[in-house]
Amino acid sequence: MTERVVLAYSGGLDTSVAIPYLAEKMNAEVVCVAVDLGQGGEDMEAIQKRAIDCGAAESVVVDAKEEFAADFCVPALQANALYMDRYPLVSSLSRPLIAKHLVTAAQQFGGTIVSHGCTGKGNDQVRFEAGLAALAPDLKVVAPARDFAWTRDKAIEYAEAKGLPIETSKKNPFSIDQNLWGRAVETGFLEDIWNGPTEEVYSYTADPSQPREPDEVVLTFEAGVPVKIDGRSLTPYEIIDELNKRAGAQGVGRIDMVEDRLVGIKSREVYEAPGAIALINAHMELENVTVERDLARFKRGVDQRWSELVYDGLWFSPLKDALDALIRQAQKHVSGDVRMTLHAGKATVTGRRSEESLYDFSLATYDTGDTFDQSLAKGFVQLFSLPAKIAAARDARKG
Amino acid sequence: MTERVVLAYSGGLDTSVAIPYLAEKMNAEVVCVAVDLGQGGEDMEAIQKRAIDCGAAESVVVDAKEEFAADFCVPALQANALYMDRYPLVSSLSRPLIAKHLVTAAQQFGGTIVSHGCTGKGNDQVRFEAGLAALAPDLKVVAPARDFAWTRDKAIEYAEAKGLPIETSKKNPFSIDQNLWGRAVETGFLEDIWNGPTEEVYSYTADPSQPREPDEVVLTFEAGVPVKIDGRSLTPYEIIDELNKRAGAQGVGRIDMVEDRLVGIKSREVYEAPGAIALINAHMELENVTVERDLARFKRGVDQRWSELVYDGLWFSPLKDALDALIRQAQKHVSGDVRMTLHAGKATVTGRRSEESLYDFSLATYDTGDTFDQSLAKGFVQLFSLPAKIAAARDARKG
Amino acid sequence: MTERVVLAYSGGLDTSVAIPYLAEKMNAEVVCVAVDLGQGGEDMEAIQKRAIDCGAAESVVVDAKEEFAADFCVPALQANALYMDRYPLVSSLSRPLIAKHLVTAAQQFGGTIVSHGCTGKGNDQVRFEAGLAALAPDLKVVAPARDFAWTRDKAIEYAEAKGLPIETSKKNPFSIDQNLWGRAVETGFLEDIWNGPTEEVYSYTADPSQPREPDEVVLTFEAGVPVKIDGRSLTPYEIIDELNKRAGAQGVGRIDMVEDRLVGIKSREVYEAPGAIALINAHMELENVTVERDLARFKRGVDQRWSELVYDGLWFSPLKDALDALIRQAQKHVSGDVRMTLHAGKATVTGRRSEESLYDFSLATYDTGDTFDQSLAKGFVQLFSLPAKIAAARDARKG
Amino acid sequence: MTERVVLAYSGGLDTSVAIPYLAEKMNAEVVCVAVDLGQGGEDMEAIQKRAIDCGAAESVVVDAKEEFAADFCVPALQANALYMDRYPLVSSLSRPLIAKHLVTAAQQFGGTIVSHGCTGKGNDQVRFEAGLAALAPDLKVVAPARDFAWTRDKAIEYAEAKGLPIETSKKNPFSIDQNLWGRAVETGFLEDIWNGPTEEVYSYTADPSQPREPDEVVLTFEAGVPVKIDGRSLTPYEIIDELNKRAGAQGVGRIDMVEDRLVGIKSREVYEAPGAIALINAHMELENVTVERDLARFKRGVDQRWSELVYDGLWFSPLKDALDALIRQAQKHVSGDVRMTLHAGKATVTGRRSEESLYDFSLATYDTGDTFDQSLAKGFVQLFSLPAKIAAARDARKG
Repeated sequence: MTERVVLAYSGGLDTSVAIPYLAEKMNAEVVCVAVDLGQGGEDMEAIQKRAIDCGAAESVVVDAKEEFAADFCVPALQANALYMDRYPLVSSLSRPLIAKHLVTAAQQFGGTIVSHGCTGKGNDQVRFEAGLAALAPDLKVVAPARDFAWTRDKAIEYAEAKGLPIETSKKNPFSIDQNLWGRAVETGFLEDIWNGPTEEVYSYTADPSQPREPDEVVLTFEAGVPVKIDGRSLTPYEIIDELNKRAGAQGVGRIDMVEDRLVGIKSREVYEAPGAIALINAHMELENVTVERDLARFKRGVDQRWSELVYDGLWFSPLKDALDALIRQAQKHVSGDVRMTLHAGKATVTGRRSEESLYDFSLATYDTGDTFDQSLAKGFVQLFSLPAKIAAARDARKG
Repeated sequence: MTERVVLAYSGGLDTSVAIPYLAEKMNAEVVCVAVDLGQGGEDMEAIQKRAIDCGAAESVVVDAKEEFAADFCVPALQANALYMDRYPLVSSLSRPLIAKHLVTAAQQFGGTIVSHGCTGKGNDQVRFEAGLAALAPDLKVVAPARDFAWTRDKAIEYAEAKGLPIETSKKNPFSIDQNLWGRAVETGFLEDIWNGPTEEVYSYTADPSQPREPDEVVLTFEAGVPVKIDGRSLTPYEIIDELNKRAGAQGVGRIDMVEDRLVGIKSREVYEAPGAIALINAHMELENVTVERDLARFKRGVDQRWSELVYDGLWFSPLKDALDALIRQAQKHVSGDVRMTLHAGKATVTGRRSEESLYDFSLATYDTGDTFDQSLAKGFVQLFSLPAKIAAARDARKG
Repeated sequence: MTERVVLAYSGGLDTSVAIPYLAEKMNAEVVCVAVDLGQGGEDMEAIQKRAIDCGAAESVVVDAKEEFAADFCVPALQANALYMDRYPLVSSLSRPLIAKHLVTAAQQFGGTIVSHGCTGKGNDQVRFEAGLAALAPDLKVVAPARDFAWTRDKAIEYAEAKGLPIETSKKNPFSIDQNLWGRAVETGFLEDIWNGPTEEVYSYTADPSQPREPDEVVLTFEAGVPVKIDGRSLTPYEIIDELNKRAGAQGVGRIDMVEDRLVGIKSREVYEAPGAIALINAHMELENVTVERDLARFKRGVDQRWSELVYDGLWFSPLKDALDALIRQAQKHVSGDVRMTLHAGKATVTGRRSEESLYDFSLATYDTGDTFDQSLAKGFVQLFSLPAKIAAARDARKG
Repeated sequence: MTERVVLAYSGGLDTSVAIPYLAEKMNAEVVCVAVDLGQGGEDMEAIQKRAIDCGAAESVVVDAKEEFAADFCVPALQANALYMDRYPLVSSLSRPLIAKHLVTAAQQFGGTIVSHGCTGKGNDQVRFEAGLAALAPDLKVVAPARDFAWTRDKAIEYAEAKGLPIETSKKNPFSIDQNLWGRAVETGFLEDIWNGPTEEVYSYTADPSQPREPDEVVLTFEAGVPVKIDGRSLTPYEIIDELNKRAGAQGVGRIDMVEDRLVGIKSREVYEAPGAIALINAHMELENVTVERDLARFKRGVDQRWSELVYDGLWFSPLKDALDALIRQAQKHVSGDVRMTLHAGKATVTGRRSEESLYDFSLATYDTGDTFDQSLAKGFVQLFSLPAKIAAARDARKG
């Protein structure tokens, strides 16, 4: 029987060309899998058809929008996941889910090889292959761009030689990846890190410097899951999608940074993630209100490790499962409303209320009704600072 | 000899009233110390004179602006110090420095008791007393508001009874503390955490929602210390002061949060710190460019611990010294320029350049000149993900 | 109605004297609760009767041995809990459980005040009161030794004056606390930290320096819970008890250290915990075999924080619950056998086997059957060390 | 000019055979560098001569014993470096030092290629090559065992075919690496992890189960550096060497564990490190006496990261430098004497004294002279446990 290669298919030049190339090179049939992660852009049916036109034996479209929102974006939100305190893990979240659907397709269509379009200097190869290693260690992986030193020029030449039904002339200066959780832009003039991004770089967000009316929004969370916007019950996908539009219209969520890649180099990345940034801001503040201090302090380190781990491609890993267990426990009381103003590139929290609140007005107020017993403070202060005091006395004694 | 109480004096109602009250209660002379930390507001000479008018035996003003900037704000900047990822430690930085000058004055004027105006439910009592315990463990501390259950109403009554030359009628609804690094506002209607702050709350920052022209600034750092604005060499004080004005004019650095106090309660705080926030943004991005990945990842945890420790009042402590040693080492190469746009409440980095840069264009680029050897990636990916793969195979085996 | 004080009762001088003293001082009836935590020593019935003889209105004995083993010692084992890498948290584990039974008794007998015998300079007051604050915040707490400056001499005088049926002459030079998980000894000549402990200090362990035959034991764990000794199925209590005897007979588990107390001072402590130390050694090695590397590395920090938190009295706290969730997840595969030799003060692991093992002979062996693909290593090594290499090149360039 | 390969030479079969093999394969001259790290065993002159006899163009012996002790073992001691809480990093410490001397030799003898005998599945390849990448990024590295799939059988065949003056018949069942800081044994029947080690495995340590007289030793430290044994001033090398003998004679320092390798697999390792374990025990206890609590707690995490980093081969790295800065600061006061009993496989601390001690008898004692103010405790306890109490009240309220 002919071997089958299951290809993560985007509809673009590189993976389109990979269809006949892999068929030829591996002497195999190619099964294309396109996953809808809310990336917008081209119609998924057109993508499906193009795969067949380029020679795929099978072509599948998977609608994973709700799955992506609920099982990947929401956990990232609960971890306040910002790699290097900035990047909300847009592509890092999608790769393990695509890997999962590649494995499903391999099982369904009898594939023994899996393929993706990533290069050898990015993070996504690790995310795909670490995911595949965990989910289906027996599948072989082939990455034409990396393993056969495939370049864009070669791809264009090959496409034209084969007469593939794919446009090869339009050269986007940027390399782009986008999904429900955000959009990543790199290369081109951004590779000079002194250059600022221009407006043409952006697509999910309007120019934040333009004057416009602010937009006020109330988000409701239940146990760390966003469940309502302005009182309307919605699915996680719908919430992120609506916030992408509303926060995007206010220019919220633009990020421009130099980033540490897993493969050991620094790269310049521009992101836009309006919904993600608005949600994370709201969630962090609701945690401030509902999570106890020691847990909140410890969770920051857990959140950071979670972000690094997922950035590094280890979504399916024992440490990820263990961090998730802690984070889930910490979300138990993260319920309530957060009011935010979306405006001029910022999602600013202006109010929070929660039946699970640990903010106690009667302990906090300096006005009538104060129940805090100040006489306890002297003993607290003295014993709290005793170790440093004893050490200081020692230092003074020793000069 | 008459005992002497050295009082941290602000010029306001509470500490003015404390002068005759302490003199009476402790049967002592009162020495007032007012420290200029760039807080602006009232003239320091007027404050000095008021202390005498209220009955102080001695009244001293210390100009600590440059010391505060260089020895307190700059280390906080190098630690990217944001308590709970938000608050740049405005008051937390000033208390240990005031404690230091109280000790100096006690030595100079023969004081054996030190006094401050803090209540028993805030953080500042801990910061004062932990500092004093470390610097001069033999000094006795008395805090009238806390130890004698002194309230504002009592203070006003006492002032009027004694005919003190201090205004008692003007009731500011907020409790305010401010210095070069920022301004803190609490109490009043902000104690209802669903209430948003109004414009009257703010003083260091203009309304970010008003349309205005952006301001572009280039900051230069040497080994983690800001040394120039737009090419002009300035002291740390001058840099923070200028950025307070320029970033403040653009509404940068407003913060509104529920915060975990050291004394165990949650409180609602509004801050404005235009210079601090602009500088921290710039510094973080310059670290992204110049600090190696493993060090950068570890330093985040150190920065968090530094912020918590200083928030908790342990500025003078062995752990603080040890964290400082690590941070100093990590700053060795944090030199270069950062270009930022100040606008609409945001300080956005748009460019960075450094002779110490670890960003290597030839490794990062996807264009001509790429020197990254992609053939190394396959082995890296496979061994990097091997532990998770072996664990996944075990899990599959065990069901 | 007469108020009732629920007293944690040990049967010793201090808490016996507290019965009439509290009754008098608080104008209340005293309910005594003695909790059997496997501490051995005096018969629990005799203790129960003595309380009545000293004037208690009610006297209860709670057999909490299995509960203590299963719900307190086993979680400590799963956290490899060793405070300061040494102390297995003997007293720290018992206090929250006693607090829980005090609350139960208060509900049962209508108590509104709770009392314990701890002083104001130890950790146990915090553990009791933090536990009580979490479980029953409305109960008032009174600690005679601390709150009424009660000393041993006063207690003896009072006992003799009242003619209490309690021996006052026998002065143990040490302060001792013991339970199933171990035994703590302090004070006396041990307060000079240059003095070594003498044999009379110890009671759970034989002199390890005496020659005797080794004892070999095989422990079986299921998901981190010890379930068998030498193939015999036993409860956690029975396993710890048997190991206390067998490991104790070989002198295993003596600890002598200077320790950081929560109240800010350093103290000298001697412990013996034969069963605990043997179990922790076995459990750590089984984790080495069955827990994936990244999780194992992260869990060390979690284990340390767990130990500090429980040492600090915060057993009932949100952070503790969250750490437990992570640890439980990490124990899922910690199943298998560990063979140990107990001898001469050491519990030495000599073998381990597990169906959940991640040790893969075919990857590890250097003999026939090796399946590790060494060709992957070069790429791994080069990309793994790339960030340090780029930084070193920068450093060389900058001199 | 003929190219020159600088080879890390041990005198054993593998690296002896590598001399003619590399010369042939690389068409180069071979320069051999043997580094004396206190590993004992064969005479270094004999090793030097053997290299020449096998065809080396140059053969150098470097006496690095004192350098290894002072610059590698002492920092490891100050970090209490125990990878996975067990392994004192024996081989991990030596590889960066050998790499350094390889670079020196390359500069001296005009080498452009560096070579080592490590396989592709161990940690040492990473340690060598990460070190070389940092110290001399331009040197090419070749590892015959890994890069040319060189096996022991091939090596023997080659040696016999070439008539090399090296014994090929004696097959040690174990793979061994040893130096001043300890000895590592792996492979053979130890690859079955249920097998216990036999006495023949050990060479640095006598059987701890044999009866013998204990040995008491007093170690003196200055700022974390061991400077005296029993009052005699010695160099770090002399101290480790003497303790290897004295603690080794008592069977101290045997370790048997399953370990997580950097290349992603678990392996079974047996170590003996009598001097290292005795010194680390003493140093940890002196830290308990002289290091303030918060710093001590934080340093545990730093120590763990240091150990992992050095285990992983990143000795020459920015994070290592930064951790060293913190550790050095923390050692400032780690001065004083520790008395230990070496016996029956254990190095037990029995006394400690220090002019830098933070143990304060008058605060710690329960006898006459107690200066601890117990009245401070109530306020401390209540505010310390307030966050958990508020959270517990919330939980109770919410059911």
